[in-house]
Amino acid sequence: MSLSTVNGKAVPGRSASVYSEVQTSRLDVLLPLPSVLQGPFSVVDGPKSSAAGNPDEIAKLFPNLFGQPSASLNAGDASSALSKDKSLKIGVVLSGGQAPGGHNVISGIFDYLQQRTTGSIMYGFRGGPAGVMKGKYVELSSEYVYPYRNQGGFDMIASGRDKIETPEQFKQAEETANKLDLDGLVVIGGDDSNTNACLLAENFRGKNMKTRVIGCPKTIDGDLKSKEVPTSFGFDTACRLYSEMIGNLMTDARSTGKYYHFVRLMGRAASHITLECALETRPNITIIGEEVAAKKQTLKNVTDYITDIICKRSEKGYNYGIILIPEGLIDFIPEVQQLIAELNEILAHGAVDEAGEWKKKLQPQSHELFEFLPRAIQEQLLLERDPHGNVQVAKIETEKMLLQMVDTELTKWKQEGKYKREFSGQCHFFGYEGRCGLPTNFDANYCYALGYGAGALLHSGKTGLISSVGNLGAPVEEWTVGGTALTSLMDVERRHGKFKPVIKKAMVELEGAPFKKFASLRDEWALKNHYVNSGPVQFVGPRSNIINNTLLLELGA
Amino acid sequence: MSLSTVNGKAVPGRSASVYSEVQTSRLDVLLPLPSVLQGPFSVVDGPKSSAAGNPDEIAKLFPNLFGQPSASLNAGDASSALSKDKSLKIGVVLSGGQAPGGHNVISGIFDYLQQRTTGSIMYGFRGGPAGVMKGKYVELSSEYVYPYRNQGGFDMIASGRDKIETPEQFKQAEETANKLDLDGLVVIGGDDSNTNACLLAENFRGKNMKTRVIGCPKTIDGDLKSKEVPTSFGFDTACRLYSEMIGNLMTDARSTGKYYHFVRLMGRAASHITLECALETRPNITIIGEEVAAKKQTLKNVTDYITDIICKRSEKGYNYGIILIPEGLIDFIPEVQQLIAELNEILAHGAVDEAGEWKKKLQPQSHELFEFLPRAIQEQLLLERDPHGNVQVAKIETEKMLLQMVDTELTKWKQEGKYKREFSGQCHFFGYEGRCGLPTNFDANYCYALGYGAGALLHSGKTGLISSVGNLGAPVEEWTVGGTALTSLMDVERRHGKFKPVIKKAMVELEGAPFKKFASLRDEWALKNHYVNSGPVQFVGPRSNIINNTLLLELGA
Repeated sequence: MSLSTVNGKAVPGRSASVYSEVQTSRLDVLLPLPSVLQGPFSVVDGPKSSAAGNPDEIAKLFPNLFGQPSASLNAGDASSALSKDKSLKIGVVLSGGQAPGGHNVISGIFDYLQQRTTGSIMYGFRGGPAGVMKGKYVELSSEYVYPYRNQGGFDMIASGRDKIETPEQFKQAEETANKLDLDGLVVIGGDDSNTNACLLAENFRGKNMKTRVIGCPKTIDGDLKSKEVPTSFGFDTACRLYSEMIGNLMTDARSTGKYYHFVRLMGRAASHITLECALETRPNITIIGEEVAAKKQTLKNVTDYITDIICKRSEKGYNYGIILIPEGLIDFIPEVQQLIAELNEILAHGAVDEAGEWKKKLQPQSHELFEFLPRAIQEQLLLERDPHGNVQVAKIETEKMLLQMVDTELTKWKQEGKYKREFSGQCHFFGYEGRCGLPTNFDANYCYALGYGAGALLHSGKTGLISSVGNLGAPVEEWTVGGTALTSLMDVERRHGKFKPVIKKAMVELEGAPFKKFASLRDEWALKNHYVNSGPVQFVGPRSNIINNTLLLELGA
Repeated sequence: MSLSTVNGKAVPGRSASVYSEVQTSRLDVLLPLPSVLQGPFSVVDGPKSSAAGNPDEIAKLFPNLFGQPSASLNAGDASSALSKDKSLKIGVVLSGGQAPGGHNVISGIFDYLQQRTTGSIMYGFRGGPAGVMKGKYVELSSEYVYPYRNQGGFDMIASGRDKIETPEQFKQAEETANKLDLDGLVVIGGDDSNTNACLLAENFRGKNMKTRVIGCPKTIDGDLKSKEVPTSFGFDTACRLYSEMIGNLMTDARSTGKYYHFVRLMGRAASHITLECALETRPNITIIGEEVAAKKQTLKNVTDYITDIICKRSEKGYNYGIILIPEGLIDFIPEVQQLIAELNEILAHGAVDEAGEWKKKLQPQSHELFEFLPRAIQEQLLLERDPHGNVQVAKIETEKMLLQMVDTELTKWKQEGKYKREFSGQCHFFGYEGRCGLPTNFDANYCYALGYGAGALLHSGKTGLISSVGNLGAPVEEWTVGGTALTSLMDVERRHGKFKPVIKKAMVELEGAPFKKFASLRDEWALKNHYVNSGPVQFVGPRSNIINNTLLLELGA
């Protein structure tokens, strides 16, 4: 049992005594570092940067940081290296949903401070950004950090969804930074959290505080990426876990010969996970939200697409198949958004009557869509409301909705003689079980480099950058390390009459290599069975260093 | 692409070109054999056997087979060995739901014939017992079998749920056996399928046919086992897969600190899977159907048990947890069975009225239970019926039902001041994704030995035995090999006024070592967090040969 202190009080770390053999075997695995991080290095600035959009507005929002260059680490001789005599006080915070590898980012920062500075102190803020605001932290020792090396989850210091964004909240963060005499803070999070990290960096800089802020790209959804930040950590592990299970369902479907498995996959805003799992496992049908939106498809279009393939497969003797659906599908369908908006309006002004008179208040298209929905979904839309009285879109089980709509459609087709078989579906949602898996070797190594690099950026006095590790298709030794100006990733959105900075979510690009490869193969996958069972994640052996298809294709491999 | 023939027509086997790297790496792994199977051996009969119950009735049902001894393989000198000159024609059939390892049983039989006989032919019957009856088969070549070695699923020849049990069906099976001149048939299946295998063996013997029948113990549910058959194959892999995901949910719960995960696990008749996953992962709450039945618990009792632990945990600051529920839970609760019987009766004699007058027809206890059920479950019971008009018990999502009941109860407790936190639950069902995973090393080796041993039993002319591999706690070399008289596992049940032979399902024994260990620890697991994340199945390294807790405890390890 390792002991450490939270605000001066002794607390146990993870007890190693309940570790499984696989967990234990992962603890002592040596993490390779990119060669630039193995010896002396210098931090070199690139050219002045701009913004992803509306640079004038971004410049106004970040007067101190806008335009600052990105930085890259170059291997150098000992004379150019940062001083090892320096002693730093660094905080780290986990923000938002878990992603496999977070513990390794922390391990990377910790090891950097141990190996490259002298007498440094590292604090872990507990429970996310709220920990920064409330000054709730634990001082990290090697005994405290060790049991989390290469382990999944965010439980070392836990995470939270609070944001540091109001003047009062910035004030609280300042107080904590001053009280702890922080030289730096590493914010591990997604697009929102990194936007907040940049605002915090701007705020600290504006007040001439010494505390620097560096971000790290985290999200299993894979929607925080750019030219300089090739992927967010956790995406690789989550997709591998989901793909293993999808592959098993494929084997099951082929063995049984009688089920269509409707699989909903986590990832609300973007469909990267669904696309990656499709590239890995080759299902018969895959719905990509971004394509549905671009083609302005209706729910009926999606239903018809699925129904048609099921029908064609039955003619080939296949009465089974696998269908992948992104969690956020209905957010991509304009007519559904319209219906929900109208329902919220109607329900805010009174109850609905049993006889259905209220439906007359719906626009014709919305009325038609409502009648097209399965009864259970209709009831869900009318009955389950959030505390503001709004329809709870997130609670709709899209895979069940589609299954029922396809079933209804097939029954019609059967009556018309267009379909002759029995249809039987099974529903699955793969989500939470993928967020906290043991990180793959890729995520473990990537995160360690992100953390170690973040330490180097803080050591060299950088702020407002996001730790960036590149050349990921090459062996770890050849990976590049640096920091990208967070302002360069930003655009603005107008909310409540004000410009708010945002790092735009990276959506599935219909012209990008991953989607184009998928699109070129899906018709063949639909009618033939090219299922791939990728098997459980392996940690040892050559196949243990596989990189996900999305990243490989985006790298042009 | 490997080619083989189905009824004389060329068909492709699994195309190796779409194998994942992990699948490919498994193909060429050498499977170790128990040392008794590595050299010459003799087949030695044990004492005369009896039956598990009602031996007189079993003797009447199996006049030719009853009392026959079990057999064991003993290492011997070459003079005692079976003749290698013999040429055999052997069929194999997969029966019922998939379990990881089935392909290795077939590989074991195939390799036995290749290595220990000369010029033998092996047939795979397609689509389960129907393939035997219809004479639908494929001749198995090494090219055909090879791509399935160590792979999950049953897709080499597929499976089916038909039974060979009527005189006409026996006649069809006889015709196929005679047409193919079969020396033997291996039936890979669960309790029902092995009962059928024994009936077929009896039938063939009664007609003086040369075709022998040997069974193999298959089911992920783990409910086909006895003193001589220590476990059924597939149980190990399925539990490892479910445990991995449960462990991830535990890490997620601990990291997030706000969800109770209600996890329903496959296994309708017995709760072995749930118990094994509990022993492996140490959840806060585990419901074991057999205990609920033994203690005659009501649904309210189960709900109160869960609610109480959630409440106690909240007092310790834990607002999250993991709850395991066996798929077949409600089949273990007498009052639910009673309610369903009454509902079937009422619904058969007319519709239910909106006002609920029909409820007066329910017995008071059933009425009370019905009112206690969540509204969605009430509607499901009344609306979703099978083709015979009966309530579809199997479709009830027990984890959702319990979550809603616990939620309702906690709301009450909150009003009474007994509970002070917010409750938030997530539901999961882990089932199909576990039936077809890549077999663990244990299942791969166990199945190969079961198949190789089945080949030896047929070679020595045995019939009506189930392939039995024992001493499983020791290294593979020390495993024992033999066959157990299927009649010795049987009892009778009275159905439609007739005695039917059955192999009783092995239920969780409340006095058995696995349950006793669980029961001795669950109170501690309930209030403290001793979660174990067992991680993904590994195929290489010392931790790749872990054996499941249930088997180890039953072996007295």
